[in-house]
Amino acid sequence: MTHKIAILGASGYTGAELVRLIATHPLMEIVAMSADRKAGLEMGAVFPHLRHLKLPTLVKIEEIDFSGVDLVFCALPHATSQAVIKELPKTVKIVDLSADFRLRDPAEYEKWYGKPHAALDLQKEAVYGLTEFYRDEIKGARLVAGTGCNAATGQYALRPLIDAGVIDLDDILIDLKAAVSGAGRSLKENLLHAELSEGYHAYAVGGTHRHLGEFDQEFSKAAGKPVHVQFTPHLVPANRGILATVYVRGDAAAVYDALAKRYVDETFVEVLPMGEHPSTKHVRGSNFVHIGVVADRLPGRVIVIAALDNLSKGSSGQALQNANLMLGEEETAGLMLAPVFP
Amino acid sequence: MTHKIAILGASGYTGAELVRLIATHPLMEIVAMSADRKAGLEMGAVFPHLRHLKLPTLVKIEEIDFSGVDLVFCALPHATSQAVIKELPKTVKIVDLSADFRLRDPAEYEKWYGKPHAALDLQKEAVYGLTEFYRDEIKGARLVAGTGCNAATGQYALRPLIDAGVIDLDDILIDLKAAVSGAGRSLKENLLHAELSEGYHAYAVGGTHRHLGEFDQEFSKAAGKPVHVQFTPHLVPANRGILATVYVRGDAAAVYDALAKRYVDETFVEVLPMGEHPSTKHVRGSNFVHIGVVADRLPGRVIVIAALDNLSKGSSGQALQNANLMLGEEETAGLMLAPVFP
Amino acid sequence: MTHKIAILGASGYTGAELVRLIATHPLMEIVAMSADRKAGLEMGAVFPHLRHLKLPTLVKIEEIDFSGVDLVFCALPHATSQAVIKELPKTVKIVDLSADFRLRDPAEYEKWYGKPHAALDLQKEAVYGLTEFYRDEIKGARLVAGTGCNAATGQYALRPLIDAGVIDLDDILIDLKAAVSGAGRSLKENLLHAELSEGYHAYAVGGTHRHLGEFDQEFSKAAGKPVHVQFTPHLVPANRGILATVYVRGDAAAVYDALAKRYVDETFVEVLPMGEHPSTKHVRGSNFVHIGVVADRLPGRVIVIAALDNLSKGSSGQALQNANLMLGEEETAGLMLAPVFP
Amino acid sequence: MTHKIAILGASGYTGAELVRLIATHPLMEIVAMSADRKAGLEMGAVFPHLRHLKLPTLVKIEEIDFSGVDLVFCALPHATSQAVIKELPKTVKIVDLSADFRLRDPAEYEKWYGKPHAALDLQKEAVYGLTEFYRDEIKGARLVAGTGCNAATGQYALRPLIDAGVIDLDDILIDLKAAVSGAGRSLKENLLHAELSEGYHAYAVGGTHRHLGEFDQEFSKAAGKPVHVQFTPHLVPANRGILATVYVRGDAAAVYDALAKRYVDETFVEVLPMGEHPSTKHVRGSNFVHIGVVADRLPGRVIVIAALDNLSKGSSGQALQNANLMLGEEETAGLMLAPVFP
Repeated sequence: MTHKIAILGASGYTGAELVRLIATHPLMEIVAMSADRKAGLEMGAVFPHLRHLKLPTLVKIEEIDFSGVDLVFCALPHATSQAVIKELPKTVKIVDLSADFRLRDPAEYEKWYGKPHAALDLQKEAVYGLTEFYRDEIKGARLVAGTGCNAATGQYALRPLIDAGVIDLDDILIDLKAAVSGAGRSLKENLLHAELSEGYHAYAVGGTHRHLGEFDQEFSKAAGKPVHVQFTPHLVPANRGILATVYVRGDAAAVYDALAKRYVDETFVEVLPMGEHPSTKHVRGSNFVHIGVVADRLPGRVIVIAALDNLSKGSSGQALQNANLMLGEEETAGLMLAPVFP
Repeated sequence: MTHKIAILGASGYTGAELVRLIATHPLMEIVAMSADRKAGLEMGAVFPHLRHLKLPTLVKIEEIDFSGVDLVFCALPHATSQAVIKELPKTVKIVDLSADFRLRDPAEYEKWYGKPHAALDLQKEAVYGLTEFYRDEIKGARLVAGTGCNAATGQYALRPLIDAGVIDLDDILIDLKAAVSGAGRSLKENLLHAELSEGYHAYAVGGTHRHLGEFDQEFSKAAGKPVHVQFTPHLVPANRGILATVYVRGDAAAVYDALAKRYVDETFVEVLPMGEHPSTKHVRGSNFVHIGVVADRLPGRVIVIAALDNLSKGSSGQALQNANLMLGEEETAGLMLAPVFP
Repeated sequence: MTHKIAILGASGYTGAELVRLIATHPLMEIVAMSADRKAGLEMGAVFPHLRHLKLPTLVKIEEIDFSGVDLVFCALPHATSQAVIKELPKTVKIVDLSADFRLRDPAEYEKWYGKPHAALDLQKEAVYGLTEFYRDEIKGARLVAGTGCNAATGQYALRPLIDAGVIDLDDILIDLKAAVSGAGRSLKENLLHAELSEGYHAYAVGGTHRHLGEFDQEFSKAAGKPVHVQFTPHLVPANRGILATVYVRGDAAAVYDALAKRYVDETFVEVLPMGEHPSTKHVRGSNFVHIGVVADRLPGRVIVIAALDNLSKGSSGQALQNANLMLGEEETAGLMLAPVFP
Repeated sequence: MTHKIAILGASGYTGAELVRLIATHPLMEIVAMSADRKAGLEMGAVFPHLRHLKLPTLVKIEEIDFSGVDLVFCALPHATSQAVIKELPKTVKIVDLSADFRLRDPAEYEKWYGKPHAALDLQKEAVYGLTEFYRDEIKGARLVAGTGCNAATGQYALRPLIDAGVIDLDDILIDLKAAVSGAGRSLKENLLHAELSEGYHAYAVGGTHRHLGEFDQEFSKAAGKPVHVQFTPHLVPANRGILATVYVRGDAAAVYDALAKRYVDETFVEVLPMGEHPSTKHVRGSNFVHIGVVADRLPGRVIVIAALDNLSKGSSGQALQNANLMLGEEETAGLMLAPVFP
């Protein structure tokens, strides 16, 4: 049976990526797509790379009849997302790609996002969408909150280490390098080709990046006590990719074992042989995560490096993986596309 | 029934692209892969983006048992290719991605490639692999010669116009912009990132590019008389893509109609609405060709622009499309992947 | 004696490039800089790469006292430029980088820019700023109109050929490849890194680019009769550079001679040895133009390729070269910086 | 008086950068240039961006008459450099850009470079070329050893902090992002555009990068006791630039003050206002270093970020700055070029 899918906010990069992935999904059919400012247009006019696909015309959300819809991907900006989801019929399953339902504590949400949450009940209900760590909850969930793309990358490197108790929780540092599509299709001077190409820099330095809210929440939960990591993201001149270089204290072999054991049965997480480490180029366009471990020359220090594609595994790929679970389908359906190289 | 596939020369970009595409093909199984200098290695060591796939270890060609093989993709350098293919069992179907069997006239081969052809019988037998124009011959062929990637792009723009007799055959100019992966994974100074990024230039200027041999052969055949186009390729700082800006003389509406009619039933060729024109970015990673037509301000002059991905539709995608036909399968199997954007 | 310089519209790329060049100029001092929306800011806040320079604070134009100013570079948008320049004191020399004074015929201006010119007297007075072809007029001018960057590139390739009468004037085609900084620091979706990087396409196809107004005016003037060229620009993923591939009919040796003779004494124009052709990468960041000539395999067809840096020789470098002449200084002052490679 | 300059190994990127800088130097004349494999060629054939300059033909080193030479820039590979410099006349001043004379301890040299040093006397004599910290020694030196480009970047961020005693010496981490020209013009697969563009990754992970030898030597010397930092470099898809994100423990205000005071009189080192941080894009093509300081949300942790151009300040610019001092000229001569943006 084919599942009827709606995509809200289809005119952004994550919306387009969802369409790209669903295009080869055997059991999903896109029946409605919204894009407020571009309502009335065909998707092929907004994203010409999708022009070969038969897709519904873009409409405003209020024009969508949700009665025949099984699952909604909500790719709207945060704050907008909670307002829209509140009004959706309870019969519809929802994967939200915004930041609105990632943080369970209303105070934390307000701290990081600057205003009170307007849908506290839904916030309570939402399941955090890091598939490999919330699989069972996701299967039964009505509302799944997609994780931050940076937050996902750091967690793939660190969660098994916290769970296994093999690292010093007081001394975790994530130096992350992100490609530009994570900032979306927004008209900002610093995202222009002329400003970004051939240069790179840090941003949100000092612990101000909102994904730290997710790190705090998830690592503290995993550890059973407050854990606060140091986190500095950088913007590099590439379109897709996140590389998290994670510095921890512990025994390199124990760190490696914890990762290797944790992910041995995970289709999308590849732990490289000890001493090797990944490149974003090798996961681009795919749902795979590559993780490497290297012991530093300084005793007791270990470097864990994780790479993924922010639009796929870090966002739309993860969303589809969760949707598959929520709909009772094979978790990997539509997601086995190999990375595009070069 | 699953077809048994061998890939010769798997350590180049076209070899890797074949693997990427076959990875989602429902009816093909790769049973052997060769790479002379990398024999003994796993494909994941040569191309880490393919490490999640279960693939045969790379071997030397002479180690392959072809008795169980249905079809061979030969992604070897030209000259090598003819020597290897000559020795393959006659029971095996072959798609050759090199230049060795594109030109039917031995003199033309010698003129463009600088030495006599060493497998004249095979040269005679080979079918030119521009699928949309040789579909029937390909279905019955044992040996199909993949086209040059630039040659394919120019032909998609021009063949229907020559066939329909709507342009002046004495005044055709192809100004082509090619991305760097077309030059392969070869260690040349001008292919270094530092040399290429942020700059661009023409190459093979003046009519010396070997793909002109294909243009001459195919356009003359289509026209029934000698046709010699002017052709200047350029190298631009991107990894995938070919954009051919083709300047012709004729009536713009007639030109548009000839293209629209010719491609109306072709899955992979999209003729954009009159006046629109394509970007390489919108076909990247896919088997699609986008073609646009614009009338110039100067009466009687028309610009036809065609874009495709040199590694997919220009090479490995085309090869797979032909293999599907040769094996009696659905022509589009494994090829409906949407372009990767951004 | 040091000349007092004002820069109007200093917050755009051409403004920043002027500052970069004047920074090493021995005889110019920047005494005032305007940037309406950024008035009150330091230049180092708008362009951090200039933070080491002592520069006047950005102000609104009306705050500038022009009484002590010798020369104004006007880097404002077209239409704005004519309104501002009209009000400047007549004692001040002006180099305008906008399109406002490039076209001498008011009807042509209105045709290409969509509204009547509001400063017809100034338009009459302005000298077209292609230095090597208007040197004497520029020396005596009060108002010099900087050329379009694409228009400059095409003219460097073609003017000597028209002057020498060595090409067919009815069959000239310019296929041009431009980097993105030519579009300025404007917030447009198609200028985003994610949209532009790794892809390329034509724009203003069919003869709609405004620089055609300059080609028509200048080539017709040089020929003494109407000349209308075909012109298709493309946008490539690089920040600086223009490459014009110019297709003409004539004798290659005659074409080469015309260029070599014309430019033999020009400091900034390098004619490469016959058969060689340029790369934008080799002129980046400099005031040099490289020109190459290649005979095509088709008899009577010649390819002339010209490369320059759109922000330097195509805009701010040209402006400074003209200002040097207007102020009676060495034409090359501040402009001998070698290209930056890689 | 003009100083006579020879450049050995002129066909690499640092050689070309030296020529670019010296081209605008008022008091230097290049009288000889060597390039073994390219002997006999003009520099303009090897680097067409320098074709407008009058330069000596490339020769083999043994063809150079050093009797009229005041100073030699030696841009040869390490190991070769020591063999060549040993044979130069003692009357010639030398700035060596290789790694051969950076480490004072022969055992350290052997440890990091894998073989014994062959010119121990010279090694003893050589002055470490980090100008701002060895200015007086450099003025009187005959042989100055250019620093590693990564090593320079890290030291600009850290030396003042070690000197001022404001950070914990046991907990220093340098996560560095380097552009590709640092790897030189060498034919390696991982330096190809197709391999590097659109992807990024770490390299020399775990403390194996040779520049650690310099960090160990210099930081230990400054501290008066052994200091061993953690250092992970990454390769990003850009041509020029190094960004060092340095993680230290201390008081942010004290860290900032130590940097601001140390560099207040340094022409080429800009300490940004507290809380701001640099981009490689803003120093590209120049001899400037930009340094920023940000306090982390975690008390006692501070992030110091330094950016420079690896070919200029990290290599050839530094070499010229040192040569100026050795020749008794203005330290900044030929080096005040503003960065090229965008």
